[in-house]
Amino acid sequence: MSYQAPLRDMRFVLHELFDAAGHCALLVNGLDRELIDGVLEEGARYTGEVVAPLNRNSDEQGATLHDGAVTTPDGFREAYRQYCDNGWASMTGPVGFGGQGFPQLVAANFHEMLMAASLSFRVYSGLTEGAVLALYKHGSAELQQAYLAKMVSGVWTGTMCLTEPQAGTDLALLRTRAEPRADGSYRVSGSKIFISGGEQDLSENIVHLVLARLPDAPGGVKGISLFLVPKFIANPDGTPGVRNALGCGAIEHKMGIKGASTCVMNFDGATGWLIGEANQGLACMFTMMNDARFQVGLQGLGIAERSFQGALAYARERLQSRALTGPAQPQQAADPIIVHPDVRRMLLTQKTLTEGSRMLAALCARELDLEHGHPEADGRKAAGKRAALLIPIVKSFLTDMGQEVASLGVQVYGGHGYIREWGMEQLMRDSRITQIYEGTNGIQALDLIRRKLLGDGGAEMAALQADLAETCAALAAHPELAPMAAVVRERIQEWRGLTADVLAATRRDVQEIGAMSVDYLQYSAYALLAGLWLRAAGAAQAALDAGTGEGDFYRAKLASADFYLRRILPRASMHREALLGGAGCLMALDEAHFAF
Amino acid sequence: MSYQAPLRDMRFVLHELFDAAGHCALLVNGLDRELIDGVLEEGARYTGEVVAPLNRNSDEQGATLHDGAVTTPDGFREAYRQYCDNGWASMTGPVGFGGQGFPQLVAANFHEMLMAASLSFRVYSGLTEGAVLALYKHGSAELQQAYLAKMVSGVWTGTMCLTEPQAGTDLALLRTRAEPRADGSYRVSGSKIFISGGEQDLSENIVHLVLARLPDAPGGVKGISLFLVPKFIANPDGTPGVRNALGCGAIEHKMGIKGASTCVMNFDGATGWLIGEANQGLACMFTMMNDARFQVGLQGLGIAERSFQGALAYARERLQSRALTGPAQPQQAADPIIVHPDVRRMLLTQKTLTEGSRMLAALCARELDLEHGHPEADGRKAAGKRAALLIPIVKSFLTDMGQEVASLGVQVYGGHGYIREWGMEQLMRDSRITQIYEGTNGIQALDLIRRKLLGDGGAEMAALQADLAETCAALAAHPELAPMAAVVRERIQEWRGLTADVLAATRRDVQEIGAMSVDYLQYSAYALLAGLWLRAAGAAQAALDAGTGEGDFYRAKLASADFYLRRILPRASMHREALLGGAGCLMALDEAHFAF
Repeated sequence: MSYQAPLRDMRFVLHELFDAAGHCALLVNGLDRELIDGVLEEGARYTGEVVAPLNRNSDEQGATLHDGAVTTPDGFREAYRQYCDNGWASMTGPVGFGGQGFPQLVAANFHEMLMAASLSFRVYSGLTEGAVLALYKHGSAELQQAYLAKMVSGVWTGTMCLTEPQAGTDLALLRTRAEPRADGSYRVSGSKIFISGGEQDLSENIVHLVLARLPDAPGGVKGISLFLVPKFIANPDGTPGVRNALGCGAIEHKMGIKGASTCVMNFDGATGWLIGEANQGLACMFTMMNDARFQVGLQGLGIAERSFQGALAYARERLQSRALTGPAQPQQAADPIIVHPDVRRMLLTQKTLTEGSRMLAALCARELDLEHGHPEADGRKAAGKRAALLIPIVKSFLTDMGQEVASLGVQVYGGHGYIREWGMEQLMRDSRITQIYEGTNGIQALDLIRRKLLGDGGAEMAALQADLAETCAALAAHPELAPMAAVVRERIQEWRGLTADVLAATRRDVQEIGAMSVDYLQYSAYALLAGLWLRAAGAAQAALDAGTGEGDFYRAKLASADFYLRRILPRASMHREALLGGAGCLMALDEAHFAF
Repeated sequence: MSYQAPLRDMRFVLHELFDAAGHCALLVNGLDRELIDGVLEEGARYTGEVVAPLNRNSDEQGATLHDGAVTTPDGFREAYRQYCDNGWASMTGPVGFGGQGFPQLVAANFHEMLMAASLSFRVYSGLTEGAVLALYKHGSAELQQAYLAKMVSGVWTGTMCLTEPQAGTDLALLRTRAEPRADGSYRVSGSKIFISGGEQDLSENIVHLVLARLPDAPGGVKGISLFLVPKFIANPDGTPGVRNALGCGAIEHKMGIKGASTCVMNFDGATGWLIGEANQGLACMFTMMNDARFQVGLQGLGIAERSFQGALAYARERLQSRALTGPAQPQQAADPIIVHPDVRRMLLTQKTLTEGSRMLAALCARELDLEHGHPEADGRKAAGKRAALLIPIVKSFLTDMGQEVASLGVQVYGGHGYIREWGMEQLMRDSRITQIYEGTNGIQALDLIRRKLLGDGGAEMAALQADLAETCAALAAHPELAPMAAVVRERIQEWRGLTADVLAATRRDVQEIGAMSVDYLQYSAYALLAGLWLRAAGAAQAALDAGTGEGDFYRAKLASADFYLRRILPRASMHREALLGGAGCLMALDEAHFAF
């Protein structure tokens, strides 16, 4: 199954919706529209021609472990070499350490391509950028000097070592210990599981960021510190030095992303260094986690796009049955299945969820950029709030969406979707992990309500809703767009009411936080996408009104927006009704009586 | 992962909702309550102790092909021997040929257990019963004499050979040919794909039911005939005789059900015999297909039950985080995750969809029994209509539900759900095929609207709705049940209105058939389940009012019904809204413009 990056849609989102060049100018990073488009074209070539062809075999062959060493699937080493040599690794890295400082708004498009081309391949590099960020924000000058440039270039990679067998969602339970040594380093001991790329043969060195407890640390999450524990301790000249006392004990056999090594990592008194303050590990890790969660959202998006491309190609080729209105291609034995309304329903669901999610990712990426790079402190602060609100929605919604779209891709292929040959079922298996790692989607939803919504009494959510309402108001007078704008306006009004209900209910009964969380997140995501689709329709209509040469493209956008509002947005109604069902019916049943 | 058949719930459905003993008396088959319960207990032992332990290895080892011979996973041969020896194979077979004539209402429970224990194992025997039915209904006395008893006993198995590479959903396109010979037999040539159990090492002989065209047959589906083409031609003494000219050319590598062989079957001038009339093959096959579709629904149900059992056990054991209301088990490091409302939401979704689906399967099974066994012709005819209406709903809804529940099971386990060790991800992979084979769920939905709803102008659907409305009316006066009855009554009213809308719209525009089909089927299923949950609540309340000794069981039923109505039934609202979005937004986009 081939993959071609959806460059036209990416340009639409970047330039026509989010003014990427203006964004870059504000961030003072010297990128203009031409440069952005050139980079993405090059990215499309690399991911489509170099990475995508490796994906099928990576699933068949998998990553393997032998004597503590992991062998990655055929072709990964060469593709990774190109990834570093051609500067893809350093795309978002800090300029002072050899990075190119690309904003997320632009880089997210390349990362989406990478996810689509091969999620297994991307897993190896995916956490390095977050590790770079954490080290850059919280690490000492010495640690930065010794490790950062190599990590930015991709020659060394980074991992995130959080989970232990008894401590997954609940990091308070973690047991890995770090004992201070006289030289300022620490002796780190413990076992971590589910470590993506914990061991591999792609990079010269692997820099583990490890959560552990100091001997005198308080219990719970307030006693967790973050350590840098490299596979090889960096020499003063920047080469990998002494082998550290850590190793990969096993790799997991998984449903998918089999080309990625998911490792049990054992630290046996390994040498590490504290990052940031003692007992502040979780705060440092959160820097990394927001980036990681955004990246996981992009994984869902990338897989969705690839599944849609596969399904669309098949639906146009596969001849089976006649159109309900009579033969559409009488010269053939049957019509291509894209003539059937239900096949179109599946394809348009894939298409509008994917394109809608791409807009949502861009919305979030822009705020992430401004959080770090806005020239004014107020601008950074405002963007930080907005990004914090959007991150759980992006992570959760884009990955649920990715799984749904991948499943629809299987369904369009029928029996051929279920066999390995066509690659559609692999996308489903690969994407399933994205709903789980970096905080399950249930945890994202709790975060949205507990930390984000209740954290400021709903102020930031109200601001987001106001922004979307403004789009509605701006388009309400346009004769072509008024009906759509009215639908979105009503939904936003409903969303405001629902948000008030949620705030009131969760204040009344703390159980409502967990009882309403997933449905509220989903509702919010569908409403948000409605606003974004309206904005897309507005941009498309403006282009048509201006007499563009790409009428088909813009008319397709309008048709897609119409489909989304009519056939997808109704899901919000379900989430609203379900949420209003309340916590009572969840808590009534005694634990022992579930088994009846 | 162990499996224990949900015997208490099965007895509830059988005896307390559907009066299984009375049903058996009407069918004159001599089964009473004690006998039924005894058989199901024995079935629970067989499936739980003999079959379920084989499932994990069957996925790891898979079925393998070597020199045209398929080797099934370790243990399958012995388990299959017991399946035949202990009479499970002959459970539903016709009494005149050694069968036990169990009604589906009872047998479905055993079959659900078998699906739950190992779908791969069940695939090998699953189509034999349908093949027996087709042969019994349409085969000549000679063919019945030569093949039926052996198939009923399970010593020989049956397959269904429909699909060809170019002919899946659209059987009109099939090319396999059958040329008459002077002796009354036929020479069958062609290639079939996706043949479940087309070759295996479990049974002495494999009897293929093959769709093929006679030389002078008209084109399309009116030129298809059904043939019996055995692997070994039966000797007059009932032993397998001459090896026929057919063989397995390859087996598919699939997402799941890896222990089941899915074969490419090549017929190279193989000897076959006509079943039924020439060119009436599709009608004969439909006899088999209704049974097969019902069985596939049970596959979804079985897998859902097993996933729920796995998730529930884990949710009660896994300690992670504290309850929102404060520590529930302060003596432990954390609380079991079942204290969290969102985990309960997932478990109760699993539970109420599974139990609701079990009631729906029973509703359909009863009609299937009455269609064949009602003492009066009118009764048979009425039941046939009802069964025809319910079959596409059962096949489609129970398999979509199975996939959803299996995915929730993975989610409850978090990262542990994604690795193979716990078996949760296997259930997701195994169940995914059920939404595809025996007619994709999209095809089921088309069948529901086109053949069933439009076929009689909605009369049978109206009768079904009236039955459910009667339940509401009967319970409306009960003080405990009145609120639930009101919710269901309103929904049935809405369903009636929606059905009228669908009838009107599809008469106006034939594209609406395909545009509304899936949402209408889903809406109908959720509404139906609401009626069944209300009936369950009624039975539970009656038992409580009568002062039963099993108060916890019945109170759990009431709590489950309440959860279903509050938190699951709202999905119907979404399907209604989406359906009313109409066909226009599906058909607007030009085929070439999807790719933008």
